[in-house]
Amino acid sequence: MLDTLKEACGVIGIFNHPDATQLTYLCLKALQHRGQEGAGIVTSDTQNHHIVRGEGLVDQVFNKQKLDTLLGIHAIGHVRYSTKGGKCLENVQPFLFRHHSGDFALCHNGNIVNSDILKNNLEAQGSLFQSTSDTEIMAHLFKKNYTDAQRFEIIKNSLNQLEGAFTFLLLTKKILYAMRDKHGLRPLSLGRLDNGGYIVASETCCFDILNATFIRDIEPGEVIGISLEELHTTHYSQNITHKMCAMEYIYFSRPDSQIESINVHNFRKQCGKVLAQKHPVANADLVIGVPDSSLSAAMGYASESKIPYELGLVKNKYVGRTFIEPTQILREHALKIKLSVVKAIVEGKKLVVVDDSIVRGNTSKNIIKLLRKAGAKEVHFRLASPPFSYPCFYGVDTSTFEELIAAKQSIEDVRKFIEADSLEYLTPDELLETQRTFNNGKSLCLACFTGKYPTKTNF
Amino acid sequence: MLDTLKEACGVIGIFNHPDATQLTYLCLKALQHRGQEGAGIVTSDTQNHHIVRGEGLVDQVFNKQKLDTLLGIHAIGHVRYSTKGGKCLENVQPFLFRHHSGDFALCHNGNIVNSDILKNNLEAQGSLFQSTSDTEIMAHLFKKNYTDAQRFEIIKNSLNQLEGAFTFLLLTKKILYAMRDKHGLRPLSLGRLDNGGYIVASETCCFDILNATFIRDIEPGEVIGISLEELHTTHYSQNITHKMCAMEYIYFSRPDSQIESINVHNFRKQCGKVLAQKHPVANADLVIGVPDSSLSAAMGYASESKIPYELGLVKNKYVGRTFIEPTQILREHALKIKLSVVKAIVEGKKLVVVDDSIVRGNTSKNIIKLLRKAGAKEVHFRLASPPFSYPCFYGVDTSTFEELIAAKQSIEDVRKFIEADSLEYLTPDELLETQRTFNNGKSLCLACFTGKYPTKTNF
Amino acid sequence: MLDTLKEACGVIGIFNHPDATQLTYLCLKALQHRGQEGAGIVTSDTQNHHIVRGEGLVDQVFNKQKLDTLLGIHAIGHVRYSTKGGKCLENVQPFLFRHHSGDFALCHNGNIVNSDILKNNLEAQGSLFQSTSDTEIMAHLFKKNYTDAQRFEIIKNSLNQLEGAFTFLLLTKKILYAMRDKHGLRPLSLGRLDNGGYIVASETCCFDILNATFIRDIEPGEVIGISLEELHTTHYSQNITHKMCAMEYIYFSRPDSQIESINVHNFRKQCGKVLAQKHPVANADLVIGVPDSSLSAAMGYASESKIPYELGLVKNKYVGRTFIEPTQILREHALKIKLSVVKAIVEGKKLVVVDDSIVRGNTSKNIIKLLRKAGAKEVHFRLASPPFSYPCFYGVDTSTFEELIAAKQSIEDVRKFIEADSLEYLTPDELLETQRTFNNGKSLCLACFTGKYPTKTNF
Amino acid sequence: MLDTLKEACGVIGIFNHPDATQLTYLCLKALQHRGQEGAGIVTSDTQNHHIVRGEGLVDQVFNKQKLDTLLGIHAIGHVRYSTKGGKCLENVQPFLFRHHSGDFALCHNGNIVNSDILKNNLEAQGSLFQSTSDTEIMAHLFKKNYTDAQRFEIIKNSLNQLEGAFTFLLLTKKILYAMRDKHGLRPLSLGRLDNGGYIVASETCCFDILNATFIRDIEPGEVIGISLEELHTTHYSQNITHKMCAMEYIYFSRPDSQIESINVHNFRKQCGKVLAQKHPVANADLVIGVPDSSLSAAMGYASESKIPYELGLVKNKYVGRTFIEPTQILREHALKIKLSVVKAIVEGKKLVVVDDSIVRGNTSKNIIKLLRKAGAKEVHFRLASPPFSYPCFYGVDTSTFEELIAAKQSIEDVRKFIEADSLEYLTPDELLETQRTFNNGKSLCLACFTGKYPTKTNF
Repeated sequence: MLDTLKEACGVIGIFNHPDATQLTYLCLKALQHRGQEGAGIVTSDTQNHHIVRGEGLVDQVFNKQKLDTLLGIHAIGHVRYSTKGGKCLENVQPFLFRHHSGDFALCHNGNIVNSDILKNNLEAQGSLFQSTSDTEIMAHLFKKNYTDAQRFEIIKNSLNQLEGAFTFLLLTKKILYAMRDKHGLRPLSLGRLDNGGYIVASETCCFDILNATFIRDIEPGEVIGISLEELHTTHYSQNITHKMCAMEYIYFSRPDSQIESINVHNFRKQCGKVLAQKHPVANADLVIGVPDSSLSAAMGYASESKIPYELGLVKNKYVGRTFIEPTQILREHALKIKLSVVKAIVEGKKLVVVDDSIVRGNTSKNIIKLLRKAGAKEVHFRLASPPFSYPCFYGVDTSTFEELIAAKQSIEDVRKFIEADSLEYLTPDELLETQRTFNNGKSLCLACFTGKYPTKTNF
Repeated sequence: MLDTLKEACGVIGIFNHPDATQLTYLCLKALQHRGQEGAGIVTSDTQNHHIVRGEGLVDQVFNKQKLDTLLGIHAIGHVRYSTKGGKCLENVQPFLFRHHSGDFALCHNGNIVNSDILKNNLEAQGSLFQSTSDTEIMAHLFKKNYTDAQRFEIIKNSLNQLEGAFTFLLLTKKILYAMRDKHGLRPLSLGRLDNGGYIVASETCCFDILNATFIRDIEPGEVIGISLEELHTTHYSQNITHKMCAMEYIYFSRPDSQIESINVHNFRKQCGKVLAQKHPVANADLVIGVPDSSLSAAMGYASESKIPYELGLVKNKYVGRTFIEPTQILREHALKIKLSVVKAIVEGKKLVVVDDSIVRGNTSKNIIKLLRKAGAKEVHFRLASPPFSYPCFYGVDTSTFEELIAAKQSIEDVRKFIEADSLEYLTPDELLETQRTFNNGKSLCLACFTGKYPTKTNF
Repeated sequence: MLDTLKEACGVIGIFNHPDATQLTYLCLKALQHRGQEGAGIVTSDTQNHHIVRGEGLVDQVFNKQKLDTLLGIHAIGHVRYSTKGGKCLENVQPFLFRHHSGDFALCHNGNIVNSDILKNNLEAQGSLFQSTSDTEIMAHLFKKNYTDAQRFEIIKNSLNQLEGAFTFLLLTKKILYAMRDKHGLRPLSLGRLDNGGYIVASETCCFDILNATFIRDIEPGEVIGISLEELHTTHYSQNITHKMCAMEYIYFSRPDSQIESINVHNFRKQCGKVLAQKHPVANADLVIGVPDSSLSAAMGYASESKIPYELGLVKNKYVGRTFIEPTQILREHALKIKLSVVKAIVEGKKLVVVDDSIVRGNTSKNIIKLLRKAGAKEVHFRLASPPFSYPCFYGVDTSTFEELIAAKQSIEDVRKFIEADSLEYLTPDELLETQRTFNNGKSLCLACFTGKYPTKTNF
Repeated sequence: MLDTLKEACGVIGIFNHPDATQLTYLCLKALQHRGQEGAGIVTSDTQNHHIVRGEGLVDQVFNKQKLDTLLGIHAIGHVRYSTKGGKCLENVQPFLFRHHSGDFALCHNGNIVNSDILKNNLEAQGSLFQSTSDTEIMAHLFKKNYTDAQRFEIIKNSLNQLEGAFTFLLLTKKILYAMRDKHGLRPLSLGRLDNGGYIVASETCCFDILNATFIRDIEPGEVIGISLEELHTTHYSQNITHKMCAMEYIYFSRPDSQIESINVHNFRKQCGKVLAQKHPVANADLVIGVPDSSLSAAMGYASESKIPYELGLVKNKYVGRTFIEPTQILREHALKIKLSVVKAIVEGKKLVVVDDSIVRGNTSKNIIKLLRKAGAKEVHFRLASPPFSYPCFYGVDTSTFEELIAAKQSIEDVRKFIEADSLEYLTPDELLETQRTFNNGKSLCLACFTGKYPTKTNF
């Protein structure tokens, strides 16, 4: 029903801090935007693991009483959307595995492309899976023929069998491992807590909250193992690329996070600037953004085009679930509860409306309808990203992708459907060019726009 | 603990609509920012009243099952902060009163200044109060010597005994009354639903949500009675003024609402412009606002000063309650969960930070600390309103006012406390001037800034 | 839907104990059987009252956090069923009234017969009611012309205006008043806590729980005022009778309580003995009771008749709400969740089934059906009370009474409906005779069996 | 804190009924006494499994919304106490396992004695466990080298590796398997639903609720597989015994259940009779039982001894959690909330008190103290079972057993501790003799009384 994209989770690890549980909990709240269907924390007190998981928002899963059961100085936490694997309690992470050689917890952001093959192979060798998540695969690979002495070799061999996007955090009683796929499709950064402990997180906004110092990003293909004695690093593959998911910049991440040294807000603003250069609207009165994630791009568009930036749409921050009868008239009101037009601003104006993406088109159509009802003279829609034309296999919800309006229709058809006066998107090349402006020496995965996938995809 | 101002509630009435309950519920969600401690709805099915009230947010009080018990075509609803009267279930409105001449429900936004005297008089005449709210007074005055024939006379006599700020909605089985104090201290607007029914609400954002047509504001001193047969209007006093609470514009209301024909966002933006003219910062690099309510003023400041507007502070929309141990270190982290600095933006910059108000100073001090930690070179604080120096008797939480930093200290002392490089406020005169720009022929109550109260205040 | 009688509440007062709130809470749990729709406690710390009320069971209304807000050394508490007045939060007691001469809380067990007249009179004198409960009347009468010096006179005058059944507890900041109607229709007992404080409760089972010493019953027509200085007693009427509600013995009270010096279990057992003498079943194999309230009478029947007492029906203690689709087949199963037949006991047997009352007959019919399905040869139903033939005006739910099967049908018709092999009731005379066995010098109200009401009933 | 024994769960399976989920849910409520820490249901709609599990009582885990997600015509359900494996969500059953050869769900009542060895072996072969429950072992054994053709062979081989007590229900998409250990330590019965479907349950009380027809008990060592085509039966072992856990009769099961053709109430009553014969009390006035599970034995004792049976102790059915400060005085009151003495009955009497078991002795000591305080002249305690002297390895909570008073002390020491005038237990021989009275051709496991275990116990 929601006309939004869904990301594949956020992960956070804290190593060696007396308040590991509380810090993890705070970071999960900071990462809540990356997953709202479930959350969990596993801690280690160096002798035992402790686990709390549940469906819903972080604050629906945890309370003081439950946090108090999570003893320990190390912790990993997870917020999730369902991608591969259904939406149920069994799939909420971190998973905790019991083994005579040592229990361990595991959580994952991303998607394994060759999971079906790997599961079949593992089952043939005696594995038994309890969730429909592809994350369990890594756990089974890890414990196959496990010995303490060879643990890094085993992890590297395991990861070399995985095709796809992943950042994994794996917590044994005494070691926190952090791993990132060799294409660098999902973000993972390393920092230092003020007590000397470590933090690993999907987004750097976690570091700011804890006054942690950013050290560096975990590199594509890198495996790090942090113990009280050392931080050991190695690579499972030398065959690496730098294909950060473009949607991390465009939509998923928080504006105050740095993704591979680029500030997300700055990236979006720059997209808006390029959009203004390449896809101008003549004689427009105002630029407005669709809150919240498109405001940065709208600011960039306005700044570049010299068209005034204005507050034309307001988001109600107290929305939550709405208990109303699903009659047509009430459903329409319910949508307006979430997003309101500032009539005094848009009335009689020729508008540039900047949004970050069009999924099924219904929301865009509704926004335009509301703007016109409020007296907007013209509505020119500008998208700060290219049209979605191909499914994502790396962690963005593919079920929603089947309904992507741009996958099946021309831009002109979409324009007609959403009833905009004009509609233009940033092109894949313009997006790449924007990224290059920041000179971080990396590139982007644009597979959902171009169909060029960095990994094999058919298994 | 929260360093914010608290408003005295929001009211909403729906007359003659088959979905009166659902529409009222949706409007309470739209008015949630005006009160988060309790909510209630009373409906009338023309034969009986139905009531649901509770503590907490609208969605904590209501669910489908409870909404289903609220039969009727007329409804009034209320969201509340505690002002006069403690914070408990007994004070949650609307109140429902039983009387042989006809039951009625009542809710109130504002504060009665002479409530103690009136309560004593009423008790001497046989009244017995069940809440500590001053709202009950109007109910008792209304039913004293009530007759159907003289109902408007009785209401007018009742209101003439009240000193203070109020908008009342009173719902009998068949009539919805709406009343506004003679100084017009609190907003109340009248609109028409698309089925011909009526809506009365504290803010016009409710109208937009329901596709209702704005008719006009209820006038200061006006009493309206809406029945199926007629909309009857009268005034309880000819001695009226136009002293809308300035804080409605500055802080309380939603940016998409029109208060006495002035759009709230536009008002704030204009405050920002005047602030830029009168209180400039030379050679600043960026203007940033404190989200959410100060963003409009910051946009105005930037637009007038030609200093770029930027996103320097980000609000986390998934905050809610935080279950952590109240140790000093964790409390500090918890604050940062709510508000993050975009380091990439502010680093090395000379900043103008626009905020709408300083209450106790702690939040401002913290923001400045965070900004400096993120590398801001200079932080110049600009307030889009004058310093609070006097208590409010009209519905803004006076307990918080006792801790108002500006009430006791000079601006320079405040600057030192919050550790800003410079600190300037809009003056009361500049605020009035800003209001006059909009030419709505009305004025403002600036009592909390100037100590000049529109009513008697000592009883 | 439930085929049971509903009592009109239980009250408990604690005076002068440091744990007054906790003791009151424990007693409310002990009185939970008297009312399951709502509960509340008001305390006094001698300066202020504190209140918590809510819908549902005691443990749904209270938790540690809420109990902690109830400061004080005096407390009154209430559990309720709705009798006069609907089932909603507004009617949950104790009520707390605010008055310049001193706030006070009030709760009530019983029913005022002339409430409509009194309410009209009071409204004519300026009263305004907020609940549909008749309890509020006493509050208004109390505060009319109140002076400290005349408080006992005022209470006595107030009570003399009330017709009906009542026990009231009224708590000012420093005094706990306990009152009982002049016919003694509802029970109220006085005891002493081990710290020297006082307890007043609907049932003596509360005393046992707190190790309190039973002093005596509050007398019909008595008013007691307990302060730190004294226990003052007086009577509002000399025209008293002793007409304890027979249903208190038969159904409402706990078997371990003493009602006017008669143990409830013993009373029921004696009813069973008389039932066996007067309404024997020849050659029966077993006597079984319908759990829980009829087991005492069944034991008496067995003991007197020398027919073995057996466990033929078992109650499931984990029932609660049942979330199933209301299809016919599932509803039947759901009933059996609550009450199971012990097939091994009843199979092939000629049974005497002792129950305390038949309300609508459906439950009895179902029990007999289940017993026959389990192989019972004959089922002879014996009721340990007379047939309900008249409405109760003193606190037993009259809405249910309208559906009383015995009110409209002959005993033979009822027998046919419930499909028993024989059906006999205790007669009103036999019930009176049973009561006289205990020699407590009091009598019973049998109005619901005989139509002879101890008070005027038409107003 | 609770001074009670804990059983190891209850299981229920429904095969081929359109309301399989609802029937399973109702049966879980009927089995609630067997486990109150968690509950779950897995259904199969023949294509997919659906699962809901949670901590707490059945009605805390399920609601209408959750039941509605459980589509299917087959279902298995489970209520649990923690035995082996801690008390957390991860251990709540049924477990659902995913496998390319077909998903399946599994639940278990009992305890596997050689679980550590088996887990180590399985891990060496590639298994990875996610719970600390021993139930997972069976799942791994089952899927090792699984083929459809050999499924019964594989199950039989798997079960032959297990030492201990178990009833398993295993549900694939289309087959429901039911298995019982070769000693018959835990009960499991088979019945037919009125639509022709099947039911398998820990207790026959489930059959009565659903109008199901009892077919027979699953035999020790038997494996049954029910598909739409056939009910296939086989035995995994010929080396069987009949060692039903004596505690099932004495304490765990419901009085209306038949365990191996003996009605539980009748068994208990007969224990009471034998107790009266062998352990009489001369000149006692009354026999009373400790509710609820000892009432049957007390009735037997009274019937045999001709001493009158009376209601001396009353259980409060509305107990639940108690939110009080844990001060000594309040804790004592809290205990009395659960169990009250009927003073009028016991005062001045020489009592025989029949209980089913003494665990730590505190409850017995308290009961005797309460009885004496209420005026009992003498209190003679009679136990309808032998003293616990050895740990149970078959599913009764062993952590509690470590605190068993009889394990360390002589009967005379226990008598002194609980302060009884006399104390006698049924001997193991008397218990066996009682069982033999019923001529069902089976025997009992008395290991917790005698230390003679039917299986190997040290691994």
